[in-house]
Amino acid sequence: MDSQNDLSTEQAPVASSRPTDKPKRQRSPRLNLIYLGGLGEVGRNMMLLEYRGQILIIDAGFRMPEEDMPGIDYIIPNIAYLRGKERNILGAVFTHGHYDHIGAIPYAWPRLGNPPIYAGKLTKGIMLNRQEDFAYQPKLDITEVQSGSRIKIGPFKIEFFRQNHNIPSNFGLFIQTPAGNIVHTSDFKFDNDPINDLPTDFGMLEKIGQRGITLLMSDSTGAENEGHSLSERLIFENLDKLFQETKGRIISSTFASHLNRVQQIIALSEKYGRKVFLEGFSMKSNVEIAKNLKYLNVKPDTLLKPNQINKYPDERISFLCTGAQGETGAVLMKMANREYKFLRLKKGDTIIFSSSVIPGNERTVQFLKDQFYRQGAHVYHYQMMDIHASGHGHQEELKRMINMMKPKFFLPIHGQYSMLFEHANIAEGQGLNRKNIIIADNGDVVSFNQERYAIERNKVPSNYVMVDGLGIGDVGEVVLRDRQTLAQDGMFVIIVIVDGQTGKVKGSPDIISRGFVYLRESKDLLKETRQRVIGIVEKSTLAEARTVNSAYIKDELRDQIGDFLFSQTKRRPMVLPVVIEV
Amino acid sequence: MDSQNDLSTEQAPVASSRPTDKPKRQRSPRLNLIYLGGLGEVGRNMMLLEYRGQILIIDAGFRMPEEDMPGIDYIIPNIAYLRGKERNILGAVFTHGHYDHIGAIPYAWPRLGNPPIYAGKLTKGIMLNRQEDFAYQPKLDITEVQSGSRIKIGPFKIEFFRQNHNIPSNFGLFIQTPAGNIVHTSDFKFDNDPINDLPTDFGMLEKIGQRGITLLMSDSTGAENEGHSLSERLIFENLDKLFQETKGRIISSTFASHLNRVQQIIALSEKYGRKVFLEGFSMKSNVEIAKNLKYLNVKPDTLLKPNQINKYPDERISFLCTGAQGETGAVLMKMANREYKFLRLKKGDTIIFSSSVIPGNERTVQFLKDQFYRQGAHVYHYQMMDIHASGHGHQEELKRMINMMKPKFFLPIHGQYSMLFEHANIAEGQGLNRKNIIIADNGDVVSFNQERYAIERNKVPSNYVMVDGLGIGDVGEVVLRDRQTLAQDGMFVIIVIVDGQTGKVKGSPDIISRGFVYLRESKDLLKETRQRVIGIVEKSTLAEARTVNSAYIKDELRDQIGDFLFSQTKRRPMVLPVVIEV
Repeated sequence: MDSQNDLSTEQAPVASSRPTDKPKRQRSPRLNLIYLGGLGEVGRNMMLLEYRGQILIIDAGFRMPEEDMPGIDYIIPNIAYLRGKERNILGAVFTHGHYDHIGAIPYAWPRLGNPPIYAGKLTKGIMLNRQEDFAYQPKLDITEVQSGSRIKIGPFKIEFFRQNHNIPSNFGLFIQTPAGNIVHTSDFKFDNDPINDLPTDFGMLEKIGQRGITLLMSDSTGAENEGHSLSERLIFENLDKLFQETKGRIISSTFASHLNRVQQIIALSEKYGRKVFLEGFSMKSNVEIAKNLKYLNVKPDTLLKPNQINKYPDERISFLCTGAQGETGAVLMKMANREYKFLRLKKGDTIIFSSSVIPGNERTVQFLKDQFYRQGAHVYHYQMMDIHASGHGHQEELKRMINMMKPKFFLPIHGQYSMLFEHANIAEGQGLNRKNIIIADNGDVVSFNQERYAIERNKVPSNYVMVDGLGIGDVGEVVLRDRQTLAQDGMFVIIVIVDGQTGKVKGSPDIISRGFVYLRESKDLLKETRQRVIGIVEKSTLAEARTVNSAYIKDELRDQIGDFLFSQTKRRPMVLPVVIEV
Repeated sequence: MDSQNDLSTEQAPVASSRPTDKPKRQRSPRLNLIYLGGLGEVGRNMMLLEYRGQILIIDAGFRMPEEDMPGIDYIIPNIAYLRGKERNILGAVFTHGHYDHIGAIPYAWPRLGNPPIYAGKLTKGIMLNRQEDFAYQPKLDITEVQSGSRIKIGPFKIEFFRQNHNIPSNFGLFIQTPAGNIVHTSDFKFDNDPINDLPTDFGMLEKIGQRGITLLMSDSTGAENEGHSLSERLIFENLDKLFQETKGRIISSTFASHLNRVQQIIALSEKYGRKVFLEGFSMKSNVEIAKNLKYLNVKPDTLLKPNQINKYPDERISFLCTGAQGETGAVLMKMANREYKFLRLKKGDTIIFSSSVIPGNERTVQFLKDQFYRQGAHVYHYQMMDIHASGHGHQEELKRMINMMKPKFFLPIHGQYSMLFEHANIAEGQGLNRKNIIIADNGDVVSFNQERYAIERNKVPSNYVMVDGLGIGDVGEVVLRDRQTLAQDGMFVIIVIVDGQTGKVKGSPDIISRGFVYLRESKDLLKETRQRVIGIVEKSTLAEARTVNSAYIKDELRDQIGDFLFSQTKRRPMVLPVVIEV
């Protein structure tokens, strides 16, 4: 893509006082921002900075599938735009170690020529741990950075600065480019009194703002929430109260990726003389990584092995596990179903849900809660008291970020469209000119310099690429639609053998059906269906002088048997006819 | 069931001072409460009162399916307990016209011998309207009741008393029985200033309490919510502000069953000179019923016909529609997808979501919101301002109800188990003896008299009965599990023709697969699979002296091809082998 040509677009709002209809006279260098994911959605964050054909990647995350995508493991960004440009990729910087920012690496990196990576120490640790599942892939080339690190990659000078979130090693990016200075906030919140982290350094942020920011790209996840996000200190104090008052076993659950919360629960367990038993694959591996890299303080004898659990009385036991979203097969679901081998719930147990419910999981989480209540446990969840805080700044924090950065252009990132839109409103409320606020979407290309910007809508492919088992992108609309149809009313295979000589059906047609009706209780329906099948086939072969027109017969069977089954059941299974001529 | 025998149960908490181990000496008459639905769940409300074999039904509702029940329309109560007892059913009283209280009638009534129904005028209207879809069924026998009505049905004397909710014609029940007085609150909230309804009559409620209540069964839906539910007056005032300030078209959506909210929006439209266009089947029919029965005030020229929409300027148009849960095919979803023929969204349109999001629908509602933002509309939803109030009392109202009724026994109804449990805690906090608080579950039988109660857990069938098309209860675990499996990784049918003489496979095996891989891009996989199929079949026939052991071959194909496909794709489609011997 030629960045000069990008400017002749259908939409070109202009922020400067110069006339817009002469973009070709624009001499100031232009930079392209290409959004492959994370705009208009939560997760799957990935963007490109392109300057004279040289490309810098920021983040490469995945997101979880939606309800109508059965069988899908993850959704990753479409990297088709980079095909044939592998040599132009200078490298990739990663803001932090959450999977919505790094999760696409194993799927994308082998196809991008394994470009060099720049990431914090913990982020690197999480990346390398994940790569163990992809051992056949080339080794990742990771350069470690820290807060204050400055690197130069082609035309881009990047400085990493510390931002509070709910995982350590989270960095905002200050990027000097020939087109102007960019700030990318990463996911962030402001916290004067965080746990396992330093307080927000507003002085440092203000200094960054004073260097002159042409474009601010800021996290919008919390843009619809009023006020200020809760401090982790408050959460800690509330959890402290619970730990102090609880006599029986404590079972806490949170996201394994929420390492600061994990730290709180371990620290409180130690404070109140409890040993910690970790459960859940991701919980165990994340704690291991963070502990080894000194991002987590755990006393040497705090963690229990399975055979040690029964050696301690209830009041000295602290379980810490995953599964607070009600995931099938996770520890909490096993406990709810009384299938977890190391612990049976009983009266006096206390269960703490220290995480929010991801939209769509409400019913399953309610199921967990009900099961725990039924088994006599106390349940504390974040709707009852402040035992969870978001890692994303609310409106007051977003305002303050905008005020400190005083950008010329503002582009909200990371969030549903409604969040981007509300974030744009917030920026306008802070005095930014609406014309300088850019609401972009995945697939858009924004080109800008210090004076102006232009946006080309839907310029690059940015559709969902679905990962299912070993397949990347091979499950598309067709396969997914078939799965949805099969789920609704099941399927109905008809196998009919036709004598090529006589045009007669041999024997009784075979029927295989699943997910439609309970066959044993539907013998009349099947009998009637078989008779109709024979009638349809023989009517066709008779009409065509006993020749077997398979394609025609199949169409007839599909339509007529489909309609017949619907008339009898008001269900529409997928009808699949097989005609065999012998 | 003999109510005397019921008392010798495994669990029999005792509330009186008499010894519990001699239940057979108990002479005071006993009444059985049998819970078929609505305990430990929201919806599907149905209970039975049984006294010396005579049965009274209270409500018969349905609930919506859960995410893992593809294709299912509704879930209704299991009425197996009533089989063979049809002649003992004295009748059924209905508290109000919401489908979670009346929705099971068309499925249950023909099987119960069409017992007589007692219901309010509006409830009756909604029931009769619904029966039009089931015209072949016997006519319902409905006796109309109103607040203050007293009826005697066998041993039960029932008084209906007005309760505030979000639909008119909602009645609590005061039931005199030989075992003591029962109060059933129906769904309720307290509202001093409601819309389309009278304020709560606390004096009347207190008088009921003064008559001596042995058992209070009270709505638990709001038991986890602090404070007092919002008054509909506040909602009205907030909506009034929106209507006053809005210049363009207003598109409001709410539940069609929430008739009081519907009234508010129609009244505000009239106040601000807007004509109302109704959309959505249930919205149109509910408004029609309520208008005809004078439960809804609509001026004669307020409602628009489709051909009149374009005759009015934007500021005089008010759309009122269903689909606020993001239902596929509903008006709002069509608007979001730009597929709605009567209206294309544009800048200046205002969309009001005046309903809460039912758990599980969050993602779809977010999709709607995003699409509306993208199309330039203003969006107001209840998380941004108080434009929706629950129809269920919060903790303070539940406390007040308990205090007014001063029951001996308390049994929380209508709600998830966590809500029942918290409601029990509330009752204990109001001074009730914990021993007199009964947390029951669907399928439990509670027998009581004025002195004591006993509970038999899981005594009657109360499992989900699923309605799918014309089938009631014919979709069971097997069919549902097949649908889930088909949805995950699709299906893979193998058709192999074997020559009975030689044991050789004739031609190339047929493969039909859907929802697994995109076949056109998987030719190598299919080729390899066919070769393996031939190998498996011929190995078997060779080993068995060329006889075709179909069952064995099918098992081998299912296992070996299943494993092969998994090794190649990490997906497990449902493998269905067909072996045809010719």
